[in-house]
Amino acid sequence: MAQYRVLIDANDEKGLVYKVSSIFFNLNLNMVSNSEFVDRVNNKFFMRSVVEGDIDAAALRKSLVEILPKKSNVRVIEPKNKDIVIMATKEMHALGDILVRHEAGELDANILAVVSNYDILEPFVSKFNIPFITVSHEGLNRAEHEEKILKTLEGFENIDYIVLAKYMRILTPRFVEAYENKIINIHHSFLPAFIGANPYKQAYERGVKIIGATAHFVNNNLDEGPIISQNVIQVDHAYDWQDMQKSGRDVEKVVLSGALKMALEDRIFVYANKTVIF
Amino acid sequence: MAQYRVLIDANDEKGLVYKVSSIFFNLNLNMVSNSEFVDRVNNKFFMRSVVEGDIDAAALRKSLVEILPKKSNVRVIEPKNKDIVIMATKEMHALGDILVRHEAGELDANILAVVSNYDILEPFVSKFNIPFITVSHEGLNRAEHEEKILKTLEGFENIDYIVLAKYMRILTPRFVEAYENKIINIHHSFLPAFIGANPYKQAYERGVKIIGATAHFVNNNLDEGPIISQNVIQVDHAYDWQDMQKSGRDVEKVVLSGALKMALEDRIFVYANKTVIF
Amino acid sequence: MAQYRVLIDANDEKGLVYKVSSIFFNLNLNMVSNSEFVDRVNNKFFMRSVVEGDIDAAALRKSLVEILPKKSNVRVIEPKNKDIVIMATKEMHALGDILVRHEAGELDANILAVVSNYDILEPFVSKFNIPFITVSHEGLNRAEHEEKILKTLEGFENIDYIVLAKYMRILTPRFVEAYENKIINIHHSFLPAFIGANPYKQAYERGVKIIGATAHFVNNNLDEGPIISQNVIQVDHAYDWQDMQKSGRDVEKVVLSGALKMALEDRIFVYANKTVIF
Amino acid sequence: MAQYRVLIDANDEKGLVYKVSSIFFNLNLNMVSNSEFVDRVNNKFFMRSVVEGDIDAAALRKSLVEILPKKSNVRVIEPKNKDIVIMATKEMHALGDILVRHEAGELDANILAVVSNYDILEPFVSKFNIPFITVSHEGLNRAEHEEKILKTLEGFENIDYIVLAKYMRILTPRFVEAYENKIINIHHSFLPAFIGANPYKQAYERGVKIIGATAHFVNNNLDEGPIISQNVIQVDHAYDWQDMQKSGRDVEKVVLSGALKMALEDRIFVYANKTVIF
Repeated sequence: MAQYRVLIDANDEKGLVYKVSSIFFNLNLNMVSNSEFVDRVNNKFFMRSVVEGDIDAAALRKSLVEILPKKSNVRVIEPKNKDIVIMATKEMHALGDILVRHEAGELDANILAVVSNYDILEPFVSKFNIPFITVSHEGLNRAEHEEKILKTLEGFENIDYIVLAKYMRILTPRFVEAYENKIINIHHSFLPAFIGANPYKQAYERGVKIIGATAHFVNNNLDEGPIISQNVIQVDHAYDWQDMQKSGRDVEKVVLSGALKMALEDRIFVYANKTVIF
Repeated sequence: MAQYRVLIDANDEKGLVYKVSSIFFNLNLNMVSNSEFVDRVNNKFFMRSVVEGDIDAAALRKSLVEILPKKSNVRVIEPKNKDIVIMATKEMHALGDILVRHEAGELDANILAVVSNYDILEPFVSKFNIPFITVSHEGLNRAEHEEKILKTLEGFENIDYIVLAKYMRILTPRFVEAYENKIINIHHSFLPAFIGANPYKQAYERGVKIIGATAHFVNNNLDEGPIISQNVIQVDHAYDWQDMQKSGRDVEKVVLSGALKMALEDRIFVYANKTVIF
Repeated sequence: MAQYRVLIDANDEKGLVYKVSSIFFNLNLNMVSNSEFVDRVNNKFFMRSVVEGDIDAAALRKSLVEILPKKSNVRVIEPKNKDIVIMATKEMHALGDILVRHEAGELDANILAVVSNYDILEPFVSKFNIPFITVSHEGLNRAEHEEKILKTLEGFENIDYIVLAKYMRILTPRFVEAYENKIINIHHSFLPAFIGANPYKQAYERGVKIIGATAHFVNNNLDEGPIISQNVIQVDHAYDWQDMQKSGRDVEKVVLSGALKMALEDRIFVYANKTVIF
Repeated sequence: MAQYRVLIDANDEKGLVYKVSSIFFNLNLNMVSNSEFVDRVNNKFFMRSVVEGDIDAAALRKSLVEILPKKSNVRVIEPKNKDIVIMATKEMHALGDILVRHEAGELDANILAVVSNYDILEPFVSKFNIPFITVSHEGLNRAEHEEKILKTLEGFENIDYIVLAKYMRILTPRFVEAYENKIINIHHSFLPAFIGANPYKQAYERGVKIIGATAHFVNNNLDEGPIISQNVIQVDHAYDWQDMQKSGRDVEKVVLSGALKMALEDRIFVYANKTVIF
């Protein structure tokens, strides 16, 4: 029997759970799991159900759209591997964590390629039989370089998510708009602290006692996109910024991989520059 | 408009969410929040909804019972302060945390009394204008002492929860059965590690690097009741067991107060010696 | 036998541990514990020893000053209760946590008074037989109000630390200078995120997945003083800002009380707007 | 200039820091860092200094031994890559984490080989150009199988540490004695909870709200060796034991790699079935 993930966000009104569940019931679908949330401030309803039964996705979606308020978003997704591209620069830890999970069969994803502005990580990525594409930025301005990357990405039939696994260049609005809510970045601080360059150095100079990492969708404001996941570790006066950087890697990779997992399992809603995660 | 907490646990079958939400819809009730969980292993369905509308609790409950599978448990609870009794022995931190929260208006509870086998805490409790009842165990065997405590408790019209805020005596099956799933204890270790007496000393001797605390309902097997909440802190070789005990107090009190909050908000289901918490 | 805490910070040079420990050895003092740290970036040496033996503090200090580099700071402190004043506004949790610890004998401190700009907390504080002093700000400008508080504080013979347990007014440079490195504040965010007013509201609006608290010494830049201690808890989309505020209280109080403990035990060095904590 | 790690454990007596630091001073060595701890219960002194200067290790050690109490342990270690062997069975995450760190140059170690009782991980390990040695246990009893592994290990000139990265077979006393305090294991629970097989299943059945991982040296009692490092994550009722297992992997790998790092940096003392870690 087919299984579907049904994701609904709508303006809230009385009876939405009843209406949706009646569709499931009438189509003889079994609800494997179900989560709801109502944002009272914005009067928004969010629901994620996993259902199984004998029907196709289009028919299910049609039935739901008919009974839901206008302008509702309804996604009916058949669970399968998503197509992802990873972008990286020089660091191996976050990238490596994803590659090992992929190798271990833990990720519901096809890694189409790793794209980098350097060729440093090529030998490493090649071990995993994953295409490595170097798009050097040398001699190019930001727009020209991005143009080449966009061209490269357009070569793929489908991209569900682009994972910035310590890709150390800022993306322009043009790039971000092309992949809205599809670009997941790991920032090496607990945002909104230490936006921008070298957050560990900033953290060291501020004398903080915890450092962290933040996975977020990328939008047009640097490090200000919707946050998916965050975590921290304790540090003390004996850490210089390089020590913080080393210790921070463990948080970065776990937070990024965790956020990617949520995305691959279609657990994330983006709304009002925030995320609702079931 | 009245607001109710509806808690349902039932054998799982297709359409339960539909059936329940149709009752809410037909009675013109608004679902303020809703959580569900299906335990696949035991085929058990759990649901907690907060609804508001113009109906009384008994009528709502009756409607739900009619459409749910036989042997379902249906509770319709009107939010109000619960009646609790706190039992303590000599330590002030867990008790004090609850008393301060109560004073600050953070607890949806009436504290009927603090009952202790010593009078040590009486001056402290008296500051808060809460009755303090000493039931000394001196010269009594366990059964006799408990008999006196049970008598004391029977003096109260209603007790929703008994909170053991570091009450250092073991309760007999008779006592536990009289207040099944109503006694919340804080154990000063991350259970099931270090069951029994002086867990900090056990932890010190084992050389652990984390210590913790566990809030659980009390059943007939010492420290083996359903776990509500746990948390831990890091320690190192420089901690002797008294240091662990001191540091552990902060975890104990926060974990116990957190578990009590869940209970007062009717968020806990007990099933198969575990808890489902929404 | 007398016990002393010896705290030294000095420009680093070869042989400092040798020189200090030779003084201890020659004076027949036993080192109960010892911690050192060298800040390589600033070439600064920090040392905290607990020693016991038959000598007075002044003699010990004199011996140490003679062998250490010029401009070294040498403190020889006899462990005893410190004199503290708590300042609060309306909230009870952080204040209450300190009062209960004090009552339980956990704090090496005499609480001289609680000073507040409102009288709201007076009934609560009075339970603990601690003087409560209301210095209302009504009808006064900031300078005038602070002047009255400073006058009040000058009435005490000695103040080792002023603890701002959710005192919701900003202190002027004049006040801060009068009690340099003696004022400990709890800020309800993981600084430097969410400086300023209502950090929980800011956190909610940013959609963070962790919230925290920071205990720090107060300096002339709002929320930018040397950080003593920080901690965080996880939140999710279901928390509105009031929920964050409620949950945050548990972190605030534990972080503030922990920082106070470090201060009372003379474990903190302040240097370059940071803390070294042994 | 040469740099040395000096590790001393001795029966405590007055003047040890003075004596050791006087040796350093007289040999014109600079103390780069220094940590001490006195275990009052067992009257044991522990010290780890990093010194730099113009002397050889043997001469330094000789000087120290002469002035320290008899039966003191004195190690003078020149920092260099340690030789390690990894043992694994079928799981990739803990092994992969170490291999990626090694590849990234984060580990001060030469990985001599990965030894396994299955050949499942061979393709994965081979990517990293590290010898993979299968020693199948099929048709062999425990003693015979271990004999073959010991023979394999004896083929290496030197082994500083054996890392059990989810090696799922129990080692006999004979094996353990051959590599005393050199075998680091990751156990997938917060020991001493859930000793033995399938701790995640045990944790699920107990209904815990936190799960964890423990890195420890292996001794002759299953899962009872000296603990190096532990960490935990929160779980809830929605986790079945396979979910716990999946989530637990992130803790396991980070805890194991962290413990290995401590070992490679010579930061661990083993004493009284515990560890002192600087």
